[in-house]
Amino acid sequence: MKNINIGLIGFGTIGAGVAKILLESRQGISDRMGAELNLNKIADLDITTDRGIKLPDGILTTDIDQVIGNPEIDIVIELIGGYEPARTFVERALKNKQSVVTANKALLAKHGNELFATARENGVDLYYEASVAGGIPIIKTMREALVGNQINSVCGILNGTCNYILTKMGDEGANFDEVLKTAQELGYAEADPTFDVEGIDTAHKLAILTSLAFATAIDYKKIHVEGICNIKPVDFAFAREFGYKIKLLAIAKNEGGYIEARVHPTMIPKEHMLAKIDDVFNAVFINADALGPSLYYGQGAGMMATASAVVADLVDIARNLNCNNLRRIPDLSFQDSKIMPGNYRPISEISSQYYLRFSALDKTSVLSRIAGILGDNGISIASVIQQGGGQGDSATVAVVMQTHKAQEKNLRAALNKIDQLEIIASPTTVIRMESDL
Amino acid sequence: MKNINIGLIGFGTIGAGVAKILLESRQGISDRMGAELNLNKIADLDITTDRGIKLPDGILTTDIDQVIGNPEIDIVIELIGGYEPARTFVERALKNKQSVVTANKALLAKHGNELFATARENGVDLYYEASVAGGIPIIKTMREALVGNQINSVCGILNGTCNYILTKMGDEGANFDEVLKTAQELGYAEADPTFDVEGIDTAHKLAILTSLAFATAIDYKKIHVEGICNIKPVDFAFAREFGYKIKLLAIAKNEGGYIEARVHPTMIPKEHMLAKIDDVFNAVFINADALGPSLYYGQGAGMMATASAVVADLVDIARNLNCNNLRRIPDLSFQDSKIMPGNYRPISEISSQYYLRFSALDKTSVLSRIAGILGDNGISIASVIQQGGGQGDSATVAVVMQTHKAQEKNLRAALNKIDQLEIIASPTTVIRMESDL
Repeated sequence: MKNINIGLIGFGTIGAGVAKILLESRQGISDRMGAELNLNKIADLDITTDRGIKLPDGILTTDIDQVIGNPEIDIVIELIGGYEPARTFVERALKNKQSVVTANKALLAKHGNELFATARENGVDLYYEASVAGGIPIIKTMREALVGNQINSVCGILNGTCNYILTKMGDEGANFDEVLKTAQELGYAEADPTFDVEGIDTAHKLAILTSLAFATAIDYKKIHVEGICNIKPVDFAFAREFGYKIKLLAIAKNEGGYIEARVHPTMIPKEHMLAKIDDVFNAVFINADALGPSLYYGQGAGMMATASAVVADLVDIARNLNCNNLRRIPDLSFQDSKIMPGNYRPISEISSQYYLRFSALDKTSVLSRIAGILGDNGISIASVIQQGGGQGDSATVAVVMQTHKAQEKNLRAALNKIDQLEIIASPTTVIRMESDL
Repeated sequence: MKNINIGLIGFGTIGAGVAKILLESRQGISDRMGAELNLNKIADLDITTDRGIKLPDGILTTDIDQVIGNPEIDIVIELIGGYEPARTFVERALKNKQSVVTANKALLAKHGNELFATARENGVDLYYEASVAGGIPIIKTMREALVGNQINSVCGILNGTCNYILTKMGDEGANFDEVLKTAQELGYAEADPTFDVEGIDTAHKLAILTSLAFATAIDYKKIHVEGICNIKPVDFAFAREFGYKIKLLAIAKNEGGYIEARVHPTMIPKEHMLAKIDDVFNAVFINADALGPSLYYGQGAGMMATASAVVADLVDIARNLNCNNLRRIPDLSFQDSKIMPGNYRPISEISSQYYLRFSALDKTSVLSRIAGILGDNGISIASVIQQGGGQGDSATVAVVMQTHKAQEKNLRAALNKIDQLEIIASPTTVIRMESDL
């Protein structure tokens, strides 16, 4: 087996982690692979900041062309993140017949289909294990280990920031804003946390998993996305009373040829494996026809865990290169000719159980009026908790309901009416409940 | 890509599952692989019993030579189980340049080193995903996804029968014998459950995982094995009081170049992911230097889950065959030249925390005498629970202790003395407690 030369673009946290593994675990990799992975070049605009890694002389460069199109570089690692210039760089590398490893979920969610086509046309690999669930080998599992299965559903906790916030809110009864602030202080949340807490990052990852599961082109725009900002401590208390936990779930299901793909806060029974995933950890839960349920758990972010996934991709491609067998595994699990546009079910057409928290003025008629409107819209109530009124400084009471399975559009029609009632103080909180993942 | 011909030996439950996937999910596999897996021959002594699978004519045979050595068969699946004739058949297939897929952990634990050598000498693959943790892709994960990591420890719940029994004993306060009977009625336990409940099956699997983790030859005899037959309902109650659960764990650690490999009932903190794995499910928990902690969960046995793993191996080998790249992944994760005899730490030299349950005659002096002997042997007590005496029909009381970390040999020396005291009614129950897996 021959040695393989690596060029890295983007020397941030993950880049430094990859360099650390390639330099410090060189022997361990070569003991497994039977050849060396040489880190030849690292391109970044900033090559003066100390990343705490001792690099051989001459590796760092500000000149991207020393990596992309350099015939000595076999594999390019893209770790700059974001859409541009990442897209341009990856495309140029692929067109130069360089295989690429990326951790960039936003890039793949938006430009994945074109980039995979470019990789195919140029006979090279574009691997992306680190783009979903960090160090957890979920791409390899879906592309290779589940090859004998039809996947029925894939659900995940794919954003460590959100899972940390929801775990702390649940455990400590704290507000979203307080916990977010702590998360930022601990480095678990960005200064601008929008991508995380609005569910966008999770949806990028779900777009990729959906495609891998159901042989569909990546279509981020078809994913229904809701974030976690509107959940209140009281919702965790009620969830507990119902025997549920609240998680930001990425859910993709294939039911009768229709795909549901959605990201939203979800109540799941506390016995479900996904309910047991706490703090910054990620997990992916797959239901497949032969394997049944399976779960994959680990660190979904962070310097070394993400770098572990990047290095696994490097070794896979190096093994492919060494036997002239690039394109060994189809990009999205299925042969290109089998990948179709997905037949997505709009969110209005899905069915779910719902948790509803009404902020009602403390009137005796409130329950009967809400129940009446729900009933008129075909929504059947499974249980009700009505808080005693007049506590604290609030003039409103919470009326909480768990519905039986209902259609989303019927629920929305009912809530439109209910939220206009003069006895309802503020918009109703809705959290979907999933009991059969 | 060209089609690949498969021959199956052993048409039992798993064999029927594999046939079912290869026949009924033929399209799904070909959509991924870009070629067909043809099930050409199934050899079994019994070809008349209906396995509920509609097979094409002419597939079934009682003649092993229609599979082994048949130049039309590219890959042989061995699913007969046990040592012989499985060993002979696998060896013959490998020597005939046929790659082999097996689910046979007992075979690999005993003869794996020789069989892998034979595979190497003949330039073919011997894959074995289904041999450990059934459908969970733990072999692929350890051989491929963790390639950039040094593994510090791998721990698992690897036997569904034991995990079912321990879960029910914990939940229901039932006796081992009662729960075993239920498990047998449900088909979760064999009529002769020795291999399962004595920990032997788990140890076979741990022998394989230890080798994959630490680049050591497979050495089943070095694994310390204890089963679950002596655990009493009262131990679950005390475990709960300490905040622990009891699981039959397979534990392999590499500490300072010494390998500990042991299978025994273990108390683990209830917050640990492995404590959350219930019923017949399996899970493997790995601590690696880059990835950190990760867990892989699913069905560790059963017709279709195990067949899922077999088919994943078939597709992997088919992909290797199609680019003349057999031997792509080293058998035991590391290059053959790097695999050494392991430097195992004898059980007497390990350190652990211990749960000790003494059956004492209700004498006021019991605690001081036990504590004295423990102290003389350098064992320090972390906490004590002394049951009130004279309850029920028993003349003995339980004195339960949790020790600080102590050396096994010191503990055994102390217990040898304690169990001879006239105030001790029966041998002391010892369960190791692992808080830092």
